[in-house]
Amino acid sequence: MENHPDLPHLDPEGRVHMVSVGEKDATQRLARAEGTLRTRPQTVRLVAEGRAPKGDVLAVARVAAIMAVKRTAEWIPLAHPIPITGVSADIKMLDDGFLVVVTVATVGPTGVEMEALTGVSAALLTLYDMLKAQERGMVIEQVRLMEKRGGRSGTYQREEG
Amino acid sequence: MENHPDLPHLDPEGRVHMVSVGEKDATQRLARAEGTLRTRPQTVRLVAEGRAPKGDVLAVARVAAIMAVKRTAEWIPLAHPIPITGVSADIKMLDDGFLVVVTVATVGPTGVEMEALTGVSAALLTLYDMLKAQERGMVIEQVRLMEKRGGRSGTYQREEG
Amino acid sequence: MENHPDLPHLDPEGRVHMVSVGEKDATQRLARAEGTLRTRPQTVRLVAEGRAPKGDVLAVARVAAIMAVKRTAEWIPLAHPIPITGVSADIKMLDDGFLVVVTVATVGPTGVEMEALTGVSAALLTLYDMLKAQERGMVIEQVRLMEKRGGRSGTYQREEG
Amino acid sequence: MENHPDLPHLDPEGRVHMVSVGEKDATQRLARAEGTLRTRPQTVRLVAEGRAPKGDVLAVARVAAIMAVKRTAEWIPLAHPIPITGVSADIKMLDDGFLVVVTVATVGPTGVEMEALTGVSAALLTLYDMLKAQERGMVIEQVRLMEKRGGRSGTYQREEG
Amino acid sequence: MENHPDLPHLDPEGRVHMVSVGEKDATQRLARAEGTLRTRPQTVRLVAEGRAPKGDVLAVARVAAIMAVKRTAEWIPLAHPIPITGVSADIKMLDDGFLVVVTVATVGPTGVEMEALTGVSAALLTLYDMLKAQERGMVIEQVRLMEKRGGRSGTYQREEG
Amino acid sequence: MENHPDLPHLDPEGRVHMVSVGEKDATQRLARAEGTLRTRPQTVRLVAEGRAPKGDVLAVARVAAIMAVKRTAEWIPLAHPIPITGVSADIKMLDDGFLVVVTVATVGPTGVEMEALTGVSAALLTLYDMLKAQERGMVIEQVRLMEKRGGRSGTYQREEG
Repeated sequence: MENHPDLPHLDPEGRVHMVSVGEKDATQRLARAEGTLRTRPQTVRLVAEGRAPKGDVLAVARVAAIMAVKRTAEWIPLAHPIPITGVSADIKMLDDGFLVVVTVATVGPTGVEMEALTGVSAALLTLYDMLKAQERGMVIEQVRLMEKRGGRSGTYQREEG
Repeated sequence: MENHPDLPHLDPEGRVHMVSVGEKDATQRLARAEGTLRTRPQTVRLVAEGRAPKGDVLAVARVAAIMAVKRTAEWIPLAHPIPITGVSADIKMLDDGFLVVVTVATVGPTGVEMEALTGVSAALLTLYDMLKAQERGMVIEQVRLMEKRGGRSGTYQREEG
Repeated sequence: MENHPDLPHLDPEGRVHMVSVGEKDATQRLARAEGTLRTRPQTVRLVAEGRAPKGDVLAVARVAAIMAVKRTAEWIPLAHPIPITGVSADIKMLDDGFLVVVTVATVGPTGVEMEALTGVSAALLTLYDMLKAQERGMVIEQVRLMEKRGGRSGTYQREEG
Repeated sequence: MENHPDLPHLDPEGRVHMVSVGEKDATQRLARAEGTLRTRPQTVRLVAEGRAPKGDVLAVARVAAIMAVKRTAEWIPLAHPIPITGVSADIKMLDDGFLVVVTVATVGPTGVEMEALTGVSAALLTLYDMLKAQERGMVIEQVRLMEKRGGRSGTYQREEG
Repeated sequence: MENHPDLPHLDPEGRVHMVSVGEKDATQRLARAEGTLRTRPQTVRLVAEGRAPKGDVLAVARVAAIMAVKRTAEWIPLAHPIPITGVSADIKMLDDGFLVVVTVATVGPTGVEMEALTGVSAALLTLYDMLKAQERGMVIEQVRLMEKRGGRSGTYQREEG
Repeated sequence: MENHPDLPHLDPEGRVHMVSVGEKDATQRLARAEGTLRTRPQTVRLVAEGRAPKGDVLAVARVAAIMAVKRTAEWIPLAHPIPITGVSADIKMLDDGFLVVVTVATVGPTGVEMEALTGVSAALLTLYDMLKAQERGMVIEQVRLMEKRGGRSGTYQREEG
């Protein structure tokens, strides 16, 4: 199972495979990703000002993130199944949208950035689903890795906002 | 199963439920969504200029979209399971990224915009996964509904590009 | 695909199969089931008196019920996959436990009592999971069908409370 | 969603998609497939002569077939999700192997031959798994469609045994 | 990822997360749970006295337990995915019902009581499904943890029967 | 959890269980399996001579193999969930069919021969699905283990081609 020099998910002849990680050590690893659902201000207020609904809307999106993180290897064809050891999903209400931040931890041979990004995507889609009766023009924006720790490639910290 | 006046995924007391659609007619419905993975130009060129890899990288992302569309109700907690009747996933290479467009068709009582948006997200995450060894700063941007047809609420067409 | 005279999930020679329902009409059907997680009073109070936690604990259990209902055919080997059209999950705090009530609706050729019972079980297990650090002796009790409507066999209503 | 003239799972430019079936009528359809696990005679006798084991070994393989049939669209990337209405799985003990026959019925817009073939494969793999401690040289052979009824393309009946 | 003082599945502000277990040692752990499906005596006799059916009915319920145990983290939103190393499912026919006992083993950082309870629930629901044509009033009762070994919190043994 | 002397997936009384592997060491293990889809020569040529289609058809089958390998424990009821560390799937075009070879690696307490065989089956079924509009008489043949390394039982190498 040799890898393509530039794109390790391909072999030298350009065919996809699942990269071999069996020789890597299992170490503590963490990744944090975030993304935004851009909405109209009144859509945020509908959630923020509601008494009861607020808890449920945000709780459902958090649960969606946690459940998607655990099943990342089913959504991303070449991702390794990874024994997740912890997940948190935080949702901030902005003036004109919702910021989702997901942090994932594992002890294993590969990083968990795909798990964090998948959790963010699932939470944003879930918020969209619950709010789409109110607003059709919502946009998912700026889904990206913010921080990554552990493993051979060391710590990554995104510089800008 | 009464719905909240503003947010139908909630009941009048703010608790989540799955909205009842049993009384709706099954009609032909279609949704088209798109989103972008923003990368450096050299990351696109790596895929575009490679001989063999190109086919596989884009094919894997298309498959990821199609498979995710079929299982949308497992990602999105309150989404209805829907008998998808057709899916296409198109990926355009931009100067500085990849544009994914997913079109989903069904004959059923609810729309398929969540399915189209979920397919776009899965394809973008899959591209990210295959390219992350080359570039860590990639960002998923502008995931949004472009068009929606069929059903009681009629046709929706996003105005801006 | 002939059925055993007493147990339709078996053929006349006693081998399991999935009962054929292709000749049945698709009609509106509903089932309601309930079950109880028996706890100590202080475990209920911990959820009831908490300010923020309460919303999340009950919301997570409701989501677990809804998601399990949709995937009943994956948990119950001989159950038919069914296009669920609506689900609600209600959780009442008792003096010494939690009562979960799940109502499921479909338009299809088979009933949804297994879906309702599966949703109840998933919500009870989820509550158990969230509360087990507080109390180990909790017991799931009285998981049962309360009402069933639609289909050839007509309406069923459980008599005792 | 136009199809390639020869391979409908591709579009005219050779990219995979899920073929659109929304305009097809939902009709009763049936498919029967079979396949063989070739073993040494003593491996068959171990199952056949065992008192209790026999029931469980064959029952587990039947259950594996039924459960795999229901989830065919998760294993086969471009397969449509289909509302299965009936499945039977029969296993015959041969002198030197096991013959698995799976019959699948649906009322829908596409045939169920992939479902029947997937059920056969799952039962054969499950038998292999349970018997592999006894014999390593077993081979799965002759997995094929035997009969197909319903739909526009009419009845198919394999000629040879 | 700090935990709420009383309910570790919540953070100090009451939002759900998946508890971090990355710092815990992987040790051998075992849990045993049980539960009962209460039926009429004639429903038990139908299974017990049947010649062939008996094997299949109980085998299918055992398989349902084993398969559900493996996928517990998909039923229970905040459960960790756990590498199960062994499962047994035993079903006793009582005078007026069926007693299911599931034992689960792992080598990992968290206990497997949720896995054992989930396996019991799946087997009971599967029995219910196969018997519901005979009797509608069946009730799932007394699903509970009987024993737990391994891990920091030590051995738990339920006192009453 | 004692095993049957001949068939370890059964207990001494012939009831299925999941064999306990918790006391086994986690070691590097590899398995390679293969199988053939027998077609008419013109069906192979359709894929081989097509310009664009070729890449996608074979890429989709490779992805199907990789995704099925990861979820083997969901297809095969008594298989252990295993942390796969690498997968490759190779497809050779023969004069009259397609030869699929899947290699799977893990670091764990059990072998991965079922994973390799499951990957082969999924790829063959996926090829069948994409080609069935061209030819109905295709047959899956000779699905078998070719090589196995690691673990207590040592290396296995199939002798004949």
